[in-house]
Amino acid sequence: MARIVMKFGGTSVADLRRIRRAAARVKVEVEAGNDVAVVVSAMAGVTNAMVQLVSDAASLADLREYDVVVSSGEQVTSGLLAVVLQSMGVSARSWMGWQIPVRTDDAHGSARIEAIEVQEMLRRFGEGQVAVVAGFQGIDPQGRITTLGRGGSDTSAVALAAALQADRCDIYTDVDGVYTTDPRIVAKARKLDRITYEEMLEMASQGAKVLQTRSVEMAMKHHVRIQVLSSFEDTPGTLVVDEDEIVEQALVSGIAYSRDEAKITLLRVLDQPGVAAKIFGPLAEAAINVDMIVQNVSAETERTDLTFTVGKSELERAVAVLRARQEELGFVELLSDPNVVKVSVIGVGMRSHAGVAQQMFTALAERGINIQVISTSEIKVSVLIAEEYTELALRGLHTAYGLDAA
Amino acid sequence: MARIVMKFGGTSVADLRRIRRAAARVKVEVEAGNDVAVVVSAMAGVTNAMVQLVSDAASLADLREYDVVVSSGEQVTSGLLAVVLQSMGVSARSWMGWQIPVRTDDAHGSARIEAIEVQEMLRRFGEGQVAVVAGFQGIDPQGRITTLGRGGSDTSAVALAAALQADRCDIYTDVDGVYTTDPRIVAKARKLDRITYEEMLEMASQGAKVLQTRSVEMAMKHHVRIQVLSSFEDTPGTLVVDEDEIVEQALVSGIAYSRDEAKITLLRVLDQPGVAAKIFGPLAEAAINVDMIVQNVSAETERTDLTFTVGKSELERAVAVLRARQEELGFVELLSDPNVVKVSVIGVGMRSHAGVAQQMFTALAERGINIQVISTSEIKVSVLIAEEYTELALRGLHTAYGLDAA
Repeated sequence: MARIVMKFGGTSVADLRRIRRAAARVKVEVEAGNDVAVVVSAMAGVTNAMVQLVSDAASLADLREYDVVVSSGEQVTSGLLAVVLQSMGVSARSWMGWQIPVRTDDAHGSARIEAIEVQEMLRRFGEGQVAVVAGFQGIDPQGRITTLGRGGSDTSAVALAAALQADRCDIYTDVDGVYTTDPRIVAKARKLDRITYEEMLEMASQGAKVLQTRSVEMAMKHHVRIQVLSSFEDTPGTLVVDEDEIVEQALVSGIAYSRDEAKITLLRVLDQPGVAAKIFGPLAEAAINVDMIVQNVSAETERTDLTFTVGKSELERAVAVLRARQEELGFVELLSDPNVVKVSVIGVGMRSHAGVAQQMFTALAERGINIQVISTSEIKVSVLIAEEYTELALRGLHTAYGLDAA
Repeated sequence: MARIVMKFGGTSVADLRRIRRAAARVKVEVEAGNDVAVVVSAMAGVTNAMVQLVSDAASLADLREYDVVVSSGEQVTSGLLAVVLQSMGVSARSWMGWQIPVRTDDAHGSARIEAIEVQEMLRRFGEGQVAVVAGFQGIDPQGRITTLGRGGSDTSAVALAAALQADRCDIYTDVDGVYTTDPRIVAKARKLDRITYEEMLEMASQGAKVLQTRSVEMAMKHHVRIQVLSSFEDTPGTLVVDEDEIVEQALVSGIAYSRDEAKITLLRVLDQPGVAAKIFGPLAEAAINVDMIVQNVSAETERTDLTFTVGKSELERAVAVLRARQEELGFVELLSDPNVVKVSVIGVGMRSHAGVAQQMFTALAERGINIQVISTSEIKVSVLIAEEYTELALRGLHTAYGLDAA
């Protein structure tokens, strides 16, 4: 007997037929003698429709009211799943964020969970009742509805699993696990049996949209064992666990990519102390995130070239901010390029092994792919390349690191 | 300066364009210096879609979960209207039933409001903030969401007006007031300037679907002045008020009709003490409402004929219940007829004037319309006639009682 949190995403509860299938999975766990809390997303498409309604209502909507509107979808799904479970003979009740309560800060639209009160839920587990929890939502200290940001139901599930000290947090989704890379691009991509939190974090933030980044951070902090699995197939998924649970660690676990990058180069910036602050300060003030940064030595003395990346959707704004300060910053020319992709190789194994980056550069060079920017962290090497080479680079790296399926 | 509750029904908030129009009306009241609480329904069609979802999910759904699902529509509208008001420069915030809170009993699906706590709302009126309240919903003593039954937002509005001791409760709807009778049938129907609570109650329960019956009862009890008016036209509506506010009271104020009736006749029932209880007891147990009842003397001694009406949708069940008890009840034959209509003339003036019923019977007889059942109350005379005579009867009575527009 175990205590389990099961989370079903939007496509897994897209209609009543799928809600019934999800309920059948819940019933299996209940009949195995487990205590079960289920966290549900809104039915596929509903949250997008709500977001659209609010943005049509006003260009700059009060985020407290935004949260009122967009949190409604999870309320509907939780009630429906409770009804379906009951009709299958499984004792169940729905819980809204404010009923539990799921206490958050007041950062509406992307609130952080601070505490979840689970005493009553635990008591009802004792009576054999399944808790069906509306994901994505909580209440702030003033008692107003908050939401946790897109994909926030993953975080709801992990936070609930932590509060319940659950043995497992199963995330049912429309893919059957975490892959070495995107199987739509690399046919030889393999499903991973296990991946560490840190690797998953890099995979998620690099564009492998399986789990919300924040949910993985939280799982790592509270040692919540996540399983990512398909709600449509009966195959084992991928376990996301502590590093010490993985006996034989591959050097590289996966290769991620992100097309949501754009490159900006400032040519012949004045090479003086404080110039970087003058460039990145105004961007930060405009809420534009800068990701990779590289500074080249220029031929000219007292001048340097600076290249960095911003989100593709923020490129236009970033260029405007910089051009407005051209005189002050002293650059001679500004080049921008949205047609780039960031490719990252990820693996905790590289902590203890040198040569991973070199292997990447070699593999790309052999395929004639020019590297524009490089950045590295302890368990990751990322390069920026021209977008047209995405598939070639992914397939080449996948082979080079020995990740191809047999 | 006044304190006003404004209620917008589903068709008045059916899309963003209409929500903006409603917001413009709210703004007018705010700029006139009034304290304003707005009660909103779900956008037209949403509640029906939710009801359908729940009934598709399970034939006998837990009403607590039904309430979770169907209350979501009002949540969305309240958030949207608050956003739109803010974008027009009007300070506003949304309130869910559980936030105010609107305390109800635990009769889920058709709960009754027991108390509304308005201190915080009043405080915010002092700061010039409009309260946008999700209608139709409350919480039960266990903190679970309740709903007030179809049309419940009217009751939310009147209860809030009572709690706030509001000067007026304006019900914006898709008709521009209460008419002497259905203008779709009688072209000469007139809009009433004023109508008493009691008359409105009879009009509502007789099928003039302008206001939820329960909201009128509550308005009468708490002396809430209701105004029914169109959200699409700038014309004065109908005031629903205490009898003493109406100086010149017409004998008959209006003529209502209901097609939701079916007739059952039991021929030659044993005429013994207790037989009525034996007939109507089983029907009550089956939750079948009986409306009009008439007992005729039969030619045969110790036998009587009994005729009564039930809701058209309950006719089949009622017949089954009675046939199963034919031997015990001793009736010889059971006749049923769904093709009937109940027509009622209504007016508080008939309390002090005789002859109103006679006038009705004469007017119908002159047009060759046979009366099947008659029932009367202090301010109403109802007759059951064949459905095919509906239009003829309504037009004839409208003329006979001098209600025709000039």
